Amino acid sequence: MSLAERCAAPLAPERIIHGGALDCARRRYPDAPTPWLDLSTGVSPRPYPISTIAPEAFTRLPDENAIAAAEQGAAAAYGAPPHVAVVAGAGTQAFIKCLPRLFPARRVGTLGFTYAEHAAAWRAAGACTFEAQVLDELAKADVAIVVNPNNPDGRLCPPEALTQLTRRMPPGSVLIVDEAFMDFSPQLSVAPTAGAKLIVLRSFGKAYGLPGLRLGFALCDAAVAERLRAELGPWSVSGPALAVGAPALADAAWLAESASIMQDAVTRLDALLERAGLTIAGGAPLFRLAQSDQAAAWFERLCARGVLTRRFPERRQWLRFGLPGAPQDWARLVQAFGVGDD
Amino acid sequence: MSLAERCAAPLAPERIIHGGALDCARRRYPDAPTPWLDLSTGVSPRPYPISTIAPEAFTRLPDENAIAAAEQGAAAAYGAPPHVAVVAGAGTQAFIKCLPRLFPARRVGTLGFTYAEHAAAWRAAGACTFEAQVLDELAKADVAIVVNPNNPDGRLCPPEALTQLTRRMPPGSVLIVDEAFMDFSPQLSVAPTAGAKLIVLRSFGKAYGLPGLRLGFALCDAAVAERLRAELGPWSVSGPALAVGAPALADAAWLAESASIMQDAVTRLDALLERAGLTIAGGAPLFRLAQSDQAAAWFERLCARGVLTRRFPERRQWLRFGLPGAPQDWARLVQAFGVGDD
Repeated sequence: MSLAERCAAPLAPERIIHGGALDCARRRYPDAPTPWLDLSTGVSPRPYPISTIAPEAFTRLPDENAIAAAEQGAAAAYGAPPHVAVVAGAGTQAFIKCLPRLFPARRVGTLGFTYAEHAAAWRAAGACTFEAQVLDELAKADVAIVVNPNNPDGRLCPPEALTQLTRRMPPGSVLIVDEAFMDFSPQLSVAPTAGAKLIVLRSFGKAYGLPGLRLGFALCDAAVAERLRAELGPWSVSGPALAVGAPALADAAWLAESASIMQDAVTRLDALLERAGLTIAGGAPLFRLAQSDQAAAWFERLCARGVLTRRFPERRQWLRFGLPGAPQDWARLVQAFGVGDD
Repeated sequence: MSLAERCAAPLAPERIIHGGALDCARRRYPDAPTPWLDLSTGVSPRPYPISTIAPEAFTRLPDENAIAAAEQGAAAAYGAPPHVAVVAGAGTQAFIKCLPRLFPARRVGTLGFTYAEHAAAWRAAGACTFEAQVLDELAKADVAIVVNPNNPDGRLCPPEALTQLTRRMPPGSVLIVDEAFMDFSPQLSVAPTAGAKLIVLRSFGKAYGLPGLRLGFALCDAAVAERLRAELGPWSVSGPALAVGAPALADAAWLAESASIMQDAVTRLDALLERAGLTIAGGAPLFRLAQSDQAAAWFERLCARGVLTRRFPERRQWLRFGLPGAPQDWARLVQAFGVGDD
């Protein structure tokens, strides 16, 4: 569809396929062995241990203190200096939905094939979207969106390239950098330079393995933060999300340990995929993108063995794999591939 | 401010005062005895007992099955027949924010002095709002909003009057009935007649005493439901909210027991307020509205004794009281009033 056609198209809700739809997989493969091993998301298989959640997190409306504690924890964890405002929301998705209402953009560019909810949210708000192949092409956008590292291929933009881009973009424009998968490579984050022209989105659920909580953060300047809070409205984040998120974000030792475990898992998974004849086309610390002419057959074979991966209707040679965690999950994946371990 | 002035006013975010802001009270009354007794909300003091929440509610993205289970539980609890669609959201507030984007309304009427977030959300979307004094005045609105029972005065509209109103409203118009406090008087709900022209909002957190979870429902027809889901986006409700909400909504015996306990509490609170010289100006099963020339003094006196109530800058003679729960909370309230019990 051309840009002109796309802009003329009616604004019907778009159907976007996501990972994690185990219920669909169960219906399609009723004979698969259970429980399913879900590798269709980029969520860490090592959840942050939840100690007892104070009853007040459930029985009271989340108050300013609880929100501030989580936001301060996020600021510290993400390396945001004092002049960067941090806003808590119910997952990155809450911000993806909000941002088009803050910036009445005409031309919205995303970098490459990426997480589909961004462009869809802007189209639903009436913007025209285009997919840039290189960062430079985004300089002409009113709003540019870069998922970094990119989902699903793991492409990384150096932070300097992103801050330079903001200087080349027209006045009043904004760059949104979705760092949902940045937790294990903090040195590449642009969080420290977030501001009026550079909005950074961070996901809590992925690296901390707790996506059901619905917690994410936007880093920006004070003026954008105020408008974001107004758009989100009061009590948009649950008490349990704030209660779990604040101490977890302060636990740098746990995150460092997870980084090391995920690095080992990535090495092991890459080796397994290659033994199965798939090519590693990319990846980030929480997922790998494999490429194969046989991708569709592998998807089916793995499903039949109770292992759900993420395929891409637009890229039929691709399969994305999240990381197994428990030893028995690794054993099932190895067995499903039928190529032996190590 | 006249209607014309209000419509010409810039769309700056409005500051709305809510109950539950214990952190502000703590700052203003640092010497008050702790813990504070928070009677500033209309949340039940008897929370639904939370048994263990399955780890998957935290470690996985909420899937279709979890959402469907909560929505089916809500449909049964609220008496919604099969043709009424039920949509889960992160509290009534999520729907209040969404609805103005579904209906490009010009004239939006609310019935009487009521929960302020409704009109504010429509004004932020560019609509003109007016406050109707009687139900009939809403017949000319593109969108009419009735909080029933009303917060804070407990005014009740009979269900027939509301369904009749939808028939008198212009084509394409819609009536939104916010039944956040309807759980203990289900016979007065219009949930069974929800549809294209009548959208019903229900709050889970209030009657079940778990507002921190952020769970609410919209009842409407299938077409509105599809648009609401698109506006809310994927995973807008947390896993814990769905996991706790579904079984709680199916527990009719617990709700009936709570209704009886709240009825006794209301009787006791009304007697106490009257002994203190306040007039009962209204109320619903989870809160009472008291009126007094001394309301401001009572507010201060109760705060100094660590009891937070809800005052209204626009109605200085009013104080709203939530219900105490534990015996020691009753004892503190009685002592704070200084008028003795029973």
